[in-house]
Amino acid sequence: MSVTAAKGFTAAGIAAGIKDSGGEDLALVVNNGPCRAAAGVFTENRVKAAPVLWSQQVLKGGRVSAVVLNSGGANACTGPLGFQDTHATAEQAAAALGHSAAEVAVCSTGLIGTRLPMDKLLPGVDAAAGRLSEHGGEKAALAIKTTDTVHKTAVAQGSSGWTVGGMAKGAGMLAPSLATMLVVLTTDADLDSAALDEALREATRTTFDRIDSDGCLSTNDTVLLLASGAAEVVPDRGEFAEALRSVCDDLAQQLIRDAEGASKDIRVEVRGAASEADAVEVGRSIARNNLLKCAVHGEDPNWGRVLSAIGTTGATFEPDRIDVAVNGVWVCQNGSVGEDRDKVDMRYREVRITADLAAGSQSAVIWTNDLTADYVHENSAYSS
Amino acid sequence: MSVTAAKGFTAAGIAAGIKDSGGEDLALVVNNGPCRAAAGVFTENRVKAAPVLWSQQVLKGGRVSAVVLNSGGANACTGPLGFQDTHATAEQAAAALGHSAAEVAVCSTGLIGTRLPMDKLLPGVDAAAGRLSEHGGEKAALAIKTTDTVHKTAVAQGSSGWTVGGMAKGAGMLAPSLATMLVVLTTDADLDSAALDEALREATRTTFDRIDSDGCLSTNDTVLLLASGAAEVVPDRGEFAEALRSVCDDLAQQLIRDAEGASKDIRVEVRGAASEADAVEVGRSIARNNLLKCAVHGEDPNWGRVLSAIGTTGATFEPDRIDVAVNGVWVCQNGSVGEDRDKVDMRYREVRITADLAAGSQSAVIWTNDLTADYVHENSAYSS
Repeated sequence: MSVTAAKGFTAAGIAAGIKDSGGEDLALVVNNGPCRAAAGVFTENRVKAAPVLWSQQVLKGGRVSAVVLNSGGANACTGPLGFQDTHATAEQAAAALGHSAAEVAVCSTGLIGTRLPMDKLLPGVDAAAGRLSEHGGEKAALAIKTTDTVHKTAVAQGSSGWTVGGMAKGAGMLAPSLATMLVVLTTDADLDSAALDEALREATRTTFDRIDSDGCLSTNDTVLLLASGAAEVVPDRGEFAEALRSVCDDLAQQLIRDAEGASKDIRVEVRGAASEADAVEVGRSIARNNLLKCAVHGEDPNWGRVLSAIGTTGATFEPDRIDVAVNGVWVCQNGSVGEDRDKVDMRYREVRITADLAAGSQSAVIWTNDLTADYVHENSAYSS
Repeated sequence: MSVTAAKGFTAAGIAAGIKDSGGEDLALVVNNGPCRAAAGVFTENRVKAAPVLWSQQVLKGGRVSAVVLNSGGANACTGPLGFQDTHATAEQAAAALGHSAAEVAVCSTGLIGTRLPMDKLLPGVDAAAGRLSEHGGEKAALAIKTTDTVHKTAVAQGSSGWTVGGMAKGAGMLAPSLATMLVVLTTDADLDSAALDEALREATRTTFDRIDSDGCLSTNDTVLLLASGAAEVVPDRGEFAEALRSVCDDLAQQLIRDAEGASKDIRVEVRGAASEADAVEVGRSIARNNLLKCAVHGEDPNWGRVLSAIGTTGATFEPDRIDVAVNGVWVCQNGSVGEDRDKVDMRYREVRITADLAAGSQSAVIWTNDLTADYVHENSAYSS
């Protein structure tokens, strides 16, 4: 599974000593071709980590032959020296693999504002290159974990013999534009970088872009899609787009289910919106409302906090026409008290909040999670 | 002190039985004139509680002779019947005082989505009218508390014999545009409603508008300013503006210090901004970052989360020119590692975060507080 499910890819995951814990912390994914077309989407945060700045440059060429990923440090806010560290990492991988550094993407995750221990990372790149395997996808997925409790992989098959697979990490800083996350997707289908770029943007728009754990946008978010062409088949574009979307959706769901400290997964569906943009804006506003997220944690169907969140948006609606359901019970009707809130059963992990704006026919789904004392604890202690 | 510090005002606070706890829950503030000029600012939430809709209408006339305030229920999202409840409240007060209901403002605070117990509230209005006193300001301030741990009052004196005083409630849902809060300000200076409106908008813009406890904007926020003219003096406009601002600032500080579950008060100062709007936008983004608020709770000077928050804004800046100080230690310089973070002492309740954007000469201060397990607990259990 993971990044080696598609033909033409090898991967490795090792413990390079970057993490103090001694756990696995360095992954290498290699595209052995024959094609090396690639696409990427990156964080919209204007404060971008060195590996994001580097990889954005690499992706401009439309080709990626390898990706080096490390946990144990984000290499963000590390200045020109941090950028040199990323560059040196790419050069080390290129030398070990006989590739050009200009085709080596780099991803980092961990604390912001700390230089990476290059004396450990560079030998780690060589060690990973020595352990590349067609079965290395799981190891690679394990090596990119930070506060993740589980590693995340997904795969989908095309009808004409091609495969899309991928791995993801991310648990905190899941965010509006892209969650904190590193994602590497691979396929053995034969597609050029323009086709990959179009498919990737459409797939992320309705998956990773619609999970929002805590409203915080990371400096390091990266989603890469690499095509090897090793299946020697040009896929149907529609089928490929759907397979890619399903893999992204699967990984996005795994990310939200592993969000830091969460005890509830919350599916926010906004219906009856005048536009999809309105639906997304309202969904995000609901998904980011700390008071509502606390109420869900307490299994309290507090629809007043949903209305309060909707009221802060610029979307088209009349307050006295909004309906809100929690787990299927329409506790708010026409902006006021609806069905008996005692009918709402919130014992299970998944909670469904539905808001109908009665202003049109567009809709969107945003996933978030509850706000818990465990989230506070985990993020109070993370860097100390 | 409080709303009866200025001449011409009487007030009362009583237990009407609206709160299940049996505590004080109804306040009445009366302007005995000779003037009854008034101004008000209200929540920008588009989902507005019935008392907000009512009081906005009253304020259009520029005159307020009395304010009825209740805790124990927000009367928000209660539909046309909820609006009738507010209207009936104003009529009851008007009858008891011999005023016109069109000059009686109403404020409510408490849970959203529940009708008020009018069988208790209306007799309570009569009872409060029977206990009006020139010394009733403290009682009134006590009666509007919800989850507030203390009541909040402030006063300032003008040089020519006039006074500005006020009371506030609010602890949760402190928000970007106006905190959850009900504030009644009184003065015995002689000013017309246009002058009061101008002074009030300017005063709230840099005080209540710049506290942001949890990013959640209430449906009920109301700040009223009533002038009795009883001091028989027309104040210097600049001096009055400053006195009003100082009272608002004092009350705003009391609100943030009493924020739900908070263990730290965080002063976010943004300097070197290209515009005041940029400074406010960046300050709010920092003040709303859950990860940073958790870090401050853990006494962790996590400046990377400050940069990450700045990066989500549209303000003018270059990432590699930003400096950030925590309690005076410039832990981030030029967007990268600065002074030793171990020098930062975060043991005390007040934490100062300073971000210098190096993009201009404008600045702004936003106050917020840390995110704690107590906040989660308090807001998980509030309505159940």
